[in-house]
Amino acid sequence: MSKKVPIGVSARHIHLSQEHVEALFGAGAKLTEFKPLSQPGQFAANETVAVHGPKGSFATVRVLGPARSMTQLEVSRTDAFALGVQAPVRESGNIEGTPGIRIVGPAGEVTVDKGVIVAARHIHFHTSDAEKWGIADKMMLAVRVGGERGLVFEQVLARVSDLYALDMHIDTDEGNATGAKTGDFGEIVG
Amino acid sequence: MSKKVPIGVSARHIHLSQEHVEALFGAGAKLTEFKPLSQPGQFAANETVAVHGPKGSFATVRVLGPARSMTQLEVSRTDAFALGVQAPVRESGNIEGTPGIRIVGPAGEVTVDKGVIVAARHIHFHTSDAEKWGIADKMMLAVRVGGERGLVFEQVLARVSDLYALDMHIDTDEGNATGAKTGDFGEIVG
Repeated sequence: MSKKVPIGVSARHIHLSQEHVEALFGAGAKLTEFKPLSQPGQFAANETVAVHGPKGSFATVRVLGPARSMTQLEVSRTDAFALGVQAPVRESGNIEGTPGIRIVGPAGEVTVDKGVIVAARHIHFHTSDAEKWGIADKMMLAVRVGGERGLVFEQVLARVSDLYALDMHIDTDEGNATGAKTGDFGEIVG
Repeated sequence: MSKKVPIGVSARHIHLSQEHVEALFGAGAKLTEFKPLSQPGQFAANETVAVHGPKGSFATVRVLGPARSMTQLEVSRTDAFALGVQAPVRESGNIEGTPGIRIVGPAGEVTVDKGVIVAARHIHFHTSDAEKWGIADKMMLAVRVGGERGLVFEQVLARVSDLYALDMHIDTDEGNATGAKTGDFGEIVG
């Protein structure tokens, strides 16, 4: 049975705590939906921020909603070099010991002392997909992507939940390295 | 027998024809060596140029020497997006139908109508290494790189010559996607 997974290539983006949403966009501000993402309830917000590292900046970083318990900036390694921060490869939410960053919004700014990560490549599985394919939460998988820059990603983290829809998330470095665009497919091969 | 290959991560760089060396650096100018590269006789030059695409520019692009028959700019896909050019994945030297670029040096500028490529990942083999491992020129290989971003590059072009030293060349997107730095090793697995 072929285990095909749609690919989503994630550009740099930021998740904000509600406290930081208000610090950056004003007291009482809430994130507003620009468009839905592949995962149910998640959205790209209309709101953007600037981020400033010791070496470089990005003027327009999309905020993803809804607000989370912790602020987290997800960048590619290329972006991390440009900012001048040593961002480690981490699973989302695991930000202890990661570098901080200065974040500037239209109504104020925040400097966090941690939260900049290169997101570990991963697949969201709905529980039903995972059961059908014999995949358990936290398994490490191998996924082949074909084409002229074909490769097999190893170390692909499985994340399983009733709240997820099937989607593989890689960053722009990974997408460019294999020539994949959002909507292309990979195949779980191990 | 394990087939280990050293990895070189290539940042964006440019090869120039002698005619363009003189157009950019002055009549009679020659490229001068900054440091040797892994391939015998090849060097990073002291000279740099600026390149300007329709969307963006890079102020400092290293010239590699010696001069070649054709001018060729090698960028990552990330770089190609930043410049605003649709650079295809190509073997070095195969530049028909590729986009052009404006190149600016201290003594003049040149606009080429082709020559911007994303270099196809490849391995240089000295003939003796290739014979030992049963590898022929133009074979497509698979190379595994380990670590927390481990992956297997497929579509790795073998290039065999008495003039080459064993080295695998990938670009910065590919290096970042697998967390590899120059001097790390890959293993030919297929």
